[in-house]
Amino acid sequence: MISTPYLLFLGDAVDPLAAKVAQGIKDWRPELCVGQFRLPGCKADMGLEDLTIEEAMARGAKTMVIGVANRGGYISDSWREVLKEALNAGLDLASGLHNLLREEQDLAFVADQNERALHDVRVPSVQYPIANGIRRSGKRCLAVGTDCSVGKMYTAMCMEKEMRARNMKATFRATGQTGILITGDGVPLDAVIADFMAGSIEYLTPDNDADHWDLIEGQGSLFHASYSGVTLALIHGGQPDALILCHEPTRKHMRGLPDHQQPSLEELRDAALMMAHVVNKECQVVGISINTAALSDEEAKAYCAETEARMGLPTVDPFRHGAGRLVDALG
Amino acid sequence: MISTPYLLFLGDAVDPLAAKVAQGIKDWRPELCVGQFRLPGCKADMGLEDLTIEEAMARGAKTMVIGVANRGGYISDSWREVLKEALNAGLDLASGLHNLLREEQDLAFVADQNERALHDVRVPSVQYPIANGIRRSGKRCLAVGTDCSVGKMYTAMCMEKEMRARNMKATFRATGQTGILITGDGVPLDAVIADFMAGSIEYLTPDNDADHWDLIEGQGSLFHASYSGVTLALIHGGQPDALILCHEPTRKHMRGLPDHQQPSLEELRDAALMMAHVVNKECQVVGISINTAALSDEEAKAYCAETEARMGLPTVDPFRHGAGRLVDALG
Repeated sequence: MISTPYLLFLGDAVDPLAAKVAQGIKDWRPELCVGQFRLPGCKADMGLEDLTIEEAMARGAKTMVIGVANRGGYISDSWREVLKEALNAGLDLASGLHNLLREEQDLAFVADQNERALHDVRVPSVQYPIANGIRRSGKRCLAVGTDCSVGKMYTAMCMEKEMRARNMKATFRATGQTGILITGDGVPLDAVIADFMAGSIEYLTPDNDADHWDLIEGQGSLFHASYSGVTLALIHGGQPDALILCHEPTRKHMRGLPDHQQPSLEELRDAALMMAHVVNKECQVVGISINTAALSDEEAKAYCAETEARMGLPTVDPFRHGAGRLVDALG
Repeated sequence: MISTPYLLFLGDAVDPLAAKVAQGIKDWRPELCVGQFRLPGCKADMGLEDLTIEEAMARGAKTMVIGVANRGGYISDSWREVLKEALNAGLDLASGLHNLLREEQDLAFVADQNERALHDVRVPSVQYPIANGIRRSGKRCLAVGTDCSVGKMYTAMCMEKEMRARNMKATFRATGQTGILITGDGVPLDAVIADFMAGSIEYLTPDNDADHWDLIEGQGSLFHASYSGVTLALIHGGQPDALILCHEPTRKHMRGLPDHQQPSLEELRDAALMMAHVVNKECQVVGISINTAALSDEEAKAYCAETEARMGLPTVDPFRHGAGRLVDALG
């Protein structure tokens, strides 16, 4: 568990996209951000106040989150002095970079001296159990996709926000690096050892109040040859009561696999439901989330309406149109 | 790759079952075994000659394989002196135990001094790629099960033996610890990091002659809540041309999951085929392998005949009746 609130480190981001982790935290957890820290030449801006480390400490910051990625995912020398200064001032560090903070000897040394934590969310920090398949109390919703990167995380985030606005009990459960940095907790599922994947998701979504919903962040796709095993572990560990089908309509082929085509929403529905019924006979597909970022307003509406008529399920782009109808569909 | 031939270390096995890894090597690769090494009180016997380490060396042994498991999977003190003696004499060591040889400081030191290898087949020794889903030349057959431990490895082994007897090109591809120790090579799939599971199986079953068959060792089950992700990665990484359905008819519930029932063979056929078609549209279910160990001769025959009539697929216990009909079904 990463201590909050955060100071967002944007470093010398070469463009706004390089700081997409910071953007995600700012978009979804603005209340956790006391400000941002930028180096000369930084091309990203979260619209937060630029703070020194001392100012951030004075406002109660507990962790500096590296919200920016270099090409290659390494920790650059221009960052190093700032990171050490943060540790010396009493901040923890959190990172989703490929290169681990803990493997940088100078940072590990300074963290140790100051008794500060280095959170590398790319690797699991917990010894997860093997899944036992026992039904748990509370409700769970999982987004499954026709492909990777079709908006599964944003769908769960949008639904959680809407549910909280309605005073429903809802918790986004992060299963990827960005989600973990946004919420401060979760399972980096793609880095878990094969035998413990489903168990890690049972651990992440334990027994809860009967009217509480976990909104589980989806990963991969049952139809993606590289990552499908991760997706199935998520379905079987998550025991979903409700599935949301996610789709990006302009994709030409499966992400990273030029020879592979997306399945239809019908194929996704049938495959995901069959697999979900192994652990939860009552699971239903309740709605469809379309990532319409590449479509005009009119195209987006038409595509959703057409899909809704064909599939007989509420169909929206929750980021563009709101997640209300998906939340209604949870019943 | 583990150097052969082997000296099988049976230690102080408390019963024959404790030495089941050695039994598997002896059953499936007798030509790789120069002899066995037993400690006082050993209750297992492979019917091989009892050799000293010097005698084994004289017969060309290259590796001493720990073919026995203690309760808890650790390396006992009574073994330690023998293992060091083997290293000093010039043998490598191979183990599938939970506790790793390389983490035993004294063994690691002696191995290093003698430039001998310590093979811990429970952990991957290769940095596997992420799967690319590109079709490969050659043919692949995968056994999939209604449950874990229903005879998938034995089915593949029996088929490989039959195919070699017919002078067909066939290679058993190990995906578990026992299989790896039997064949000296393979992928310990349950210990691979999630993102690399399917890629490890692509690595294991590369391009080959058009008339060559890989017989891929199955793992878990699509319907087993704890391990299904591993199974799906195996299907998508393996790109099977042929699937064999494996079943154990007397099981009361899914192994380790008292609340979960086995799927029917029809459900397994439909789910496995749908998933296999994602990577290989031509994949077919060609036969059924029944583990009849718990049935009488008459019961076994009746069960297979009944299943064959119902499913319309050749159905045998390959270990009891021979794998000829399954091999015929590969076409």
